[in-house]
Amino acid sequence: MLAEIITIGDEILIGQIVDTNSAWMAVRLNEIGIEVKQITTVADRAADILMALNLASGRADVILVTGGLGPTKDDVTKHTLATYFGQGLRRDPEVLRHVEAIFKRRGREVLDVNKQQADVLEKAEVLFNSLGTAPGMWISHQNRHYVVMPGVPFEMKHLMEERVLPRLTFFKGRTPLDHHTLLTAGLGESFLAERIRDIEIHLPSQIHLAYLPKPGVVRLRLTGIGPNHEVLEQKLKYYAQQLEEACGPYFMAHGDVSLAEVILAEFKKRGLKLAAAESCTGGYLANLLTAIPGSSEVFQGSAVTYSNLSKTALLGVDPGVLETYDAVSEEVVIEMSKGAAQVFAADYAIAVSGVAGPGSDVTGLPAGHIWMAISGPDKTHTRLFQLGKDRRVNIQTAAAFALFELIALIREKAK
Amino acid sequence: MLAEIITIGDEILIGQIVDTNSAWMAVRLNEIGIEVKQITTVADRAADILMALNLASGRADVILVTGGLGPTKDDVTKHTLATYFGQGLRRDPEVLRHVEAIFKRRGREVLDVNKQQADVLEKAEVLFNSLGTAPGMWISHQNRHYVVMPGVPFEMKHLMEERVLPRLTFFKGRTPLDHHTLLTAGLGESFLAERIRDIEIHLPSQIHLAYLPKPGVVRLRLTGIGPNHEVLEQKLKYYAQQLEEACGPYFMAHGDVSLAEVILAEFKKRGLKLAAAESCTGGYLANLLTAIPGSSEVFQGSAVTYSNLSKTALLGVDPGVLETYDAVSEEVVIEMSKGAAQVFAADYAIAVSGVAGPGSDVTGLPAGHIWMAISGPDKTHTRLFQLGKDRRVNIQTAAAFALFELIALIREKAK
Repeated sequence: MLAEIITIGDEILIGQIVDTNSAWMAVRLNEIGIEVKQITTVADRAADILMALNLASGRADVILVTGGLGPTKDDVTKHTLATYFGQGLRRDPEVLRHVEAIFKRRGREVLDVNKQQADVLEKAEVLFNSLGTAPGMWISHQNRHYVVMPGVPFEMKHLMEERVLPRLTFFKGRTPLDHHTLLTAGLGESFLAERIRDIEIHLPSQIHLAYLPKPGVVRLRLTGIGPNHEVLEQKLKYYAQQLEEACGPYFMAHGDVSLAEVILAEFKKRGLKLAAAESCTGGYLANLLTAIPGSSEVFQGSAVTYSNLSKTALLGVDPGVLETYDAVSEEVVIEMSKGAAQVFAADYAIAVSGVAGPGSDVTGLPAGHIWMAISGPDKTHTRLFQLGKDRRVNIQTAAAFALFELIALIREKAK
Repeated sequence: MLAEIITIGDEILIGQIVDTNSAWMAVRLNEIGIEVKQITTVADRAADILMALNLASGRADVILVTGGLGPTKDDVTKHTLATYFGQGLRRDPEVLRHVEAIFKRRGREVLDVNKQQADVLEKAEVLFNSLGTAPGMWISHQNRHYVVMPGVPFEMKHLMEERVLPRLTFFKGRTPLDHHTLLTAGLGESFLAERIRDIEIHLPSQIHLAYLPKPGVVRLRLTGIGPNHEVLEQKLKYYAQQLEEACGPYFMAHGDVSLAEVILAEFKKRGLKLAAAESCTGGYLANLLTAIPGSSEVFQGSAVTYSNLSKTALLGVDPGVLETYDAVSEEVVIEMSKGAAQVFAADYAIAVSGVAGPGSDVTGLPAGHIWMAISGPDKTHTRLFQLGKDRRVNIQTAAAFALFELIALIREKAK
């Protein structure tokens, strides 16, 4: 069973946005054994969309179309689809009520252009979009299935997860595929490859290993292909176990989870509370943790202290220590972490202070010179990271490394 | 003059990597007046590549092909091109010397498979790749130009900048294109469309308007096409000015900038300091501001107070007020913003407290019920946002809306 993805939008063709939707969709389709044959990006122009639909229908069984469903004049997808399928549009009452409710909640008048968001293809099945005003549509036509979704990433993902993928899993003719992901942290891709080389070399031909690196973490994804789901699952489990052992302390978790989720689960299990004090990560660490629903059970908060004055006012850092050692120093992160544990009444507190970059700081310390401390019930653990010049990457890597150190510490203590 | 981009690689179709090359190429091609008609991604499979080349040559004048030039078995681009153009391959002596030198420098033996990297199409012009072993190729065939490059981003960019773009700028028939972007915030796409409808309807045919929405902000992009660059620039300026006026208080800035950059610039200009107190945005607001280099001149920090206790300990929120009104209330955000202004010694402080979602809070308030306060030198301004159920979107929208309110306040005061 083959799929094609058609992405509609001038903004992609002029390079204003990078098409991240297609990769996300491809991953999810592959997971359920549907191969993506081609990804095509065309402009918000009827002739181009018609040609792309026509060609895709000659190559694939399922055609996923995203973008161009907004209420503004430059979005032409819906009328073009009406032309393509030779159908008119009808106003869907349920979608209309939903659109009106959204506007009412925001205290805004519903304009005619908003009501048009409820117009769908006559014979389409509506894929109800609870997160936005543009509904998705499912059209079956001449033995092909066309799935039309808005291009806004969170709306597309919502529709894929809630409405499209569950339905596609019932289709026959999918390639029997299975995946297993492991989360590792604290070690770069090439060092990790060195650690697991023997396993990688001896993987059977039906199992493939991929490295998916992000700042501070590397995901390992095993993909297996084979007719017998149970045999496949057993094999994947076997190799996942081998990889876990080979990764040693850098193994964090099985499954497609984030470091923040691992931390929160470990703390919850132990009934512990966590807090943070951030200088160079500037709230990024807190944001990673608070992005997870239910994090408030564990995470008490973070003092993002960007000035020396606030390090003293919020965390009680001794002004003399700041004067003597400067803000980016082991002495200061120790005081920050102890202060955060106290003021947030937490069992553990992470503190990070460093030079995010791209330039050096006023004292001449280079970009990427970042101190971290973790204050726990018994002792305070510190580490110096020496990273690169890219501000965004440094912030993300420092946060991931700090979470990695915390997990290692907690697990060490549990032994 | 039209271009098409063909990206070859299984890793993109399984979603293992996001195709960032195409957006980069599109930006650079647009800059020199070459419009990208379509972006196509196909697998490392001869039949698929042949079909993509054939279709692209019917639509575009310049076809840029990347990927599949590596030495491994799964890279088939070069042999497929030889079939497509009906040419053999020849071993290029200069490229061979370069490949051998690279291996010698790394202390590695040159295998036959590595020598094959020096094989190029018989009639192709070699685009010498000083950064890698796979050379680029330029093939002119039946009034079309085919540019073949490796898919490794830094090698592709090097070839584009050094060899391809300089040559394309000499081509006639390029469309003189120009863009102008405006940042707006605080108003949804459809209401914005309503405000600027008269301008949009009367735009001349050579100027096109696009809406680019993200949570809390909408970018407006004007694209102009015309033979005279100066005339075009003047026209874009004229319509950008009209849009600015029509957007009124929702207009934030000209150019491709973020809300955080606008805030930081406004504060810097006025010599003001900013701080925050975050509950439901959980550090996201601080992260937006601190992501910008030099933000520490303005931004003093944020107290991410996820627990009631820390709202009192860090921000001095009266426990009685917390008890009476609960954490998500106008009374509490007012105290949080006043406390943050004081403890961070800032002129202005933003506070946000609400139900991020996806569920309701313990007191029964629905997801998306979010209070915001801004405490300034003279008075405190508050607002209630009523958003949706998606946690990530609520966090991002609340942060954007809060920044919008702050900009509006600062500008109002300047009048």
